Amino acid sequence: MSSKPRSRWGWGFEGEMIDETELRERKAFLESTLGFPERPVRDPVPLSDTTIPDPAIEIPDELADFCSSDRAVRARRTYGMARPETIRAFHGDFTPAPDIVARPTTETEVEAVLAWASDRRVAVSPVTGGTGVAGGTGPPAGDIRAGYTGTIALDLGNLNDVLEVDERSRTALIEGGTLGPAINRQLDEYGLHLRHYPQSYRLSGLGGWIATRSGGHYATRYTHIDELVESVRMICPAGPFETQRLPAHGAGPDANRLVCGSEGSLGVITRAWMQVEPRPQYRSDAAVYFDGILEAAAAIRRIVQAKLYPANCRLHDRVETSLYGMDDVEADLVILGFESTDQPTDAALDRALEICEAEGGSCPDGPDHYGPGYGHDRPEDSDVVRWGEAFQLGGSGSTDLPLCVVGGTVETAVTWDRFPEFHEAMLAAVTDALDAECKMGHVSTRFTHVYPDGPAVYYTFRAPGDPDPDRRIEQWRRIKRAGLDTVMEYDLTPTHHHAVGRDHKEWYAKQIPEPYGDALRAVKGVLDPAGVMNPGVLVDPPGRD
Amino acid sequence: MSSKPRSRWGWGFEGEMIDETELRERKAFLESTLGFPERPVRDPVPLSDTTIPDPAIEIPDELADFCSSDRAVRARRTYGMARPETIRAFHGDFTPAPDIVARPTTETEVEAVLAWASDRRVAVSPVTGGTGVAGGTGPPAGDIRAGYTGTIALDLGNLNDVLEVDERSRTALIEGGTLGPAINRQLDEYGLHLRHYPQSYRLSGLGGWIATRSGGHYATRYTHIDELVESVRMICPAGPFETQRLPAHGAGPDANRLVCGSEGSLGVITRAWMQVEPRPQYRSDAAVYFDGILEAAAAIRRIVQAKLYPANCRLHDRVETSLYGMDDVEADLVILGFESTDQPTDAALDRALEICEAEGGSCPDGPDHYGPGYGHDRPEDSDVVRWGEAFQLGGSGSTDLPLCVVGGTVETAVTWDRFPEFHEAMLAAVTDALDAECKMGHVSTRFTHVYPDGPAVYYTFRAPGDPDPDRRIEQWRRIKRAGLDTVMEYDLTPTHHHAVGRDHKEWYAKQIPEPYGDALRAVKGVLDPAGVMNPGVLVDPPGRD
Repeated sequence: MSSKPRSRWGWGFEGEMIDETELRERKAFLESTLGFPERPVRDPVPLSDTTIPDPAIEIPDELADFCSSDRAVRARRTYGMARPETIRAFHGDFTPAPDIVARPTTETEVEAVLAWASDRRVAVSPVTGGTGVAGGTGPPAGDIRAGYTGTIALDLGNLNDVLEVDERSRTALIEGGTLGPAINRQLDEYGLHLRHYPQSYRLSGLGGWIATRSGGHYATRYTHIDELVESVRMICPAGPFETQRLPAHGAGPDANRLVCGSEGSLGVITRAWMQVEPRPQYRSDAAVYFDGILEAAAAIRRIVQAKLYPANCRLHDRVETSLYGMDDVEADLVILGFESTDQPTDAALDRALEICEAEGGSCPDGPDHYGPGYGHDRPEDSDVVRWGEAFQLGGSGSTDLPLCVVGGTVETAVTWDRFPEFHEAMLAAVTDALDAECKMGHVSTRFTHVYPDGPAVYYTFRAPGDPDPDRRIEQWRRIKRAGLDTVMEYDLTPTHHHAVGRDHKEWYAKQIPEPYGDALRAVKGVLDPAGVMNPGVLVDPPGRD
Repeated sequence: MSSKPRSRWGWGFEGEMIDETELRERKAFLESTLGFPERPVRDPVPLSDTTIPDPAIEIPDELADFCSSDRAVRARRTYGMARPETIRAFHGDFTPAPDIVARPTTETEVEAVLAWASDRRVAVSPVTGGTGVAGGTGPPAGDIRAGYTGTIALDLGNLNDVLEVDERSRTALIEGGTLGPAINRQLDEYGLHLRHYPQSYRLSGLGGWIATRSGGHYATRYTHIDELVESVRMICPAGPFETQRLPAHGAGPDANRLVCGSEGSLGVITRAWMQVEPRPQYRSDAAVYFDGILEAAAAIRRIVQAKLYPANCRLHDRVETSLYGMDDVEADLVILGFESTDQPTDAALDRALEICEAEGGSCPDGPDHYGPGYGHDRPEDSDVVRWGEAFQLGGSGSTDLPLCVVGGTVETAVTWDRFPEFHEAMLAAVTDALDAECKMGHVSTRFTHVYPDGPAVYYTFRAPGDPDPDRRIEQWRRIKRAGLDTVMEYDLTPTHHHAVGRDHKEWYAKQIPEPYGDALRAVKGVLDPAGVMNPGVLVDPPGRD
């Protein structure tokens, strides 16, 4: 982690959190634009008043060099950024705080932590950026916690180097604790970049991305981090699990794919060889407006099936554009972007725009092309740039916390044939739940990534919540449940790129084939025989269910 | 399987095998062009004289409707097309023949076979096309066979329908036993195709492709069948393992990726939703000549790193082109092909040719572009077309069997930084082994698929072998071992797209991380608790090693 302390409850660093002007503007926006009833304003509970139990176990001598039981340090490794977690943190409830925070500087120290924890039945919670939004970060609570003698957060922040760069193969060996900006700052020396920019980019890191099958900014082709992993090393309680540096292979079920998505439940990802590349030289982008999400979806479907491989191909419905502050836009917006390190991208964008026009889209500002030969930069006020800025500022609703807003997301992926029916059912289910819980609220829709056979759809809801944090968490849970139950009615996935964690686990268990659940538990039994890795997340040890 | 009986030993159907003229021409080519000593000519052993043990077990009543113990039927399900297998089959040795051949017409019948086999400890060998070249097709022999009461080949040839087509999402539900031509004949009605053409296309089928992580004709992007699988159903002894129809997801380690590459050792792949698409409308291709494989490799590296996504991007060294009958070509050949269902491909090929020229390549015939607006077809005598025809006729060396040639392949994938050193070591190791075993012989090199970080390299060797089949198999084994040991010296994979089977298993065991081997065995223990699925292939049941 950076030396600047992270906020205990919000999206970013201490001192960045609450700006009075921003808060006032947000309050006015909620009340006047969205029509929420007058919002109470709450202050975050200061560290001195938070509930943090005393450590249940002491730091063992053999780990003393890199462990801490400091109250503030433990508070910051208690939660990820899931909505219930940030609400609890804001209101000062750090009940599940780890007893110990380990910050190893070598893989040997990681191994020492896992050996000690396995031996003493201490639950281990690996953390890189701590920005997970599915409840997969931090120690277990309640009944699951009770099965362990103690908890230790394993913060990989000191494993933060780019160790080796193979310029010819365009790959780099990067440590698991390296955060997004630190990765690219180090790769910059070689004129290379890891082109994977999840919305959490500034605060999250490689190990967490791989563990959660993070989705990057690429809308097509390289959507998940999986596509950029050449090889990986995961330290498991049973020993190191290291795959080979290979461009590809066909030797049995791909071992990399067992590590991608393992969510800290099998081991700790300490390093990976990743595919990297220079910054793009050529870019083309456009904002296209549609009168209806189904028309926009039809255009997107044709673009992706034509294998044009846009780097950006997002759909924001008209509710969403107004929330991004683009309230002058009364249409459904499709952002198209192409990029290349090698060749002009104008023909690809022009073809995509032809398709959009055939499906009823309009592009009043026309396409913009940048790169050698064009001689001009992106205009700073284009809708594409406005969208990008709003996107980068996004997070997990930190500014809504003081205003007692209940907000959240439901995501999935669905084939094109069933998208219209599913979409209608989803909007109805979430709207009904918002009405039942909060008497009002809104839900917006976007496509974050698209595939030849269907989009990844992302629903965001927001409503005036109960000022009481526990009741507000319960509201969140019921609204989210309405969405996830609808997802499962259509036999879809509860997560496209935000992992299973603890929050999606009930639906994940319904989603996967029963023999696969049994197989994963058997794998956990082999790699983590004492069952200490990230308890409660993704997969239980054999025999627990 | 087709109603026309397949050859017991060669690549194709009965009656297609030995043409006197072709045999004479091949003999002359080997002796005069390749300088082999005079080749003896052997005839295949007729069915009546083959060694096929009587069945060790009887067909149980409950499976009688779809099972056979016919001698010829059993002979044809004894082997795949690995070199030692075709040599044994040619010379009449069918010792490991299955006791029973089951040809189920429903998934219920598949389940019945697995239940009966698990109960009676009968080894089950699933087969679709039976063209596997890594010794993964057919019943176990020797010590492994001795651990079972009998053997049954599970031929999926009657599960050969396209069951459902989703034209909007461009996906189709296809049964596992459907062979390549039957898939596309059925999809033709919808104007769609499964664009996956392994060299075995005419004789192999969907279940086998998925089970072996088959490599198709696409040189980049969609290299392995894995990329085209939307969902899959695998019947395991423990029950059906069916994944969801999803464009993508991030929910835990991807279950599809456990099925891809499972090689019949976990269950039987009975159906899958596959991504399909229309035939390409636009094509561009070119043949480029280089004076040296490293120069050609440099050009290919830049093309793939530029993300031009050529559909074809093969390198054949000068030894290889002469063997394809293109003996007027005294250079290393790169075949480039682009295709699109939607947009012209000329700009992409032109850019690729610019790169080739910068790296010393020459394209004397220039690029060829086809599609709406060009108004002409591919010329029939272009080098690209000549290459394509030679490729389609290729197989597992059937025409060399009567002439007692020892031939085989070693394949791997390697990052660009290590390719030159590895390539030199590989050529030296195989050449030394050829000299030691046969006093002469040659080895040729191609790239079958290419990635941003390196090529899939494929080495083919051929030498005058011993007329005695057992001694010839031993020669093959030693030469192949020299290649595979070199692969492992460089910590690479023993297979890029031809599976592990039994022939690569020794090296696969060295390749994978130890905890992954343990994890796979645990998975097998869950999905195939009696340990009856494809014994000896890929992964052993828990506790056997």
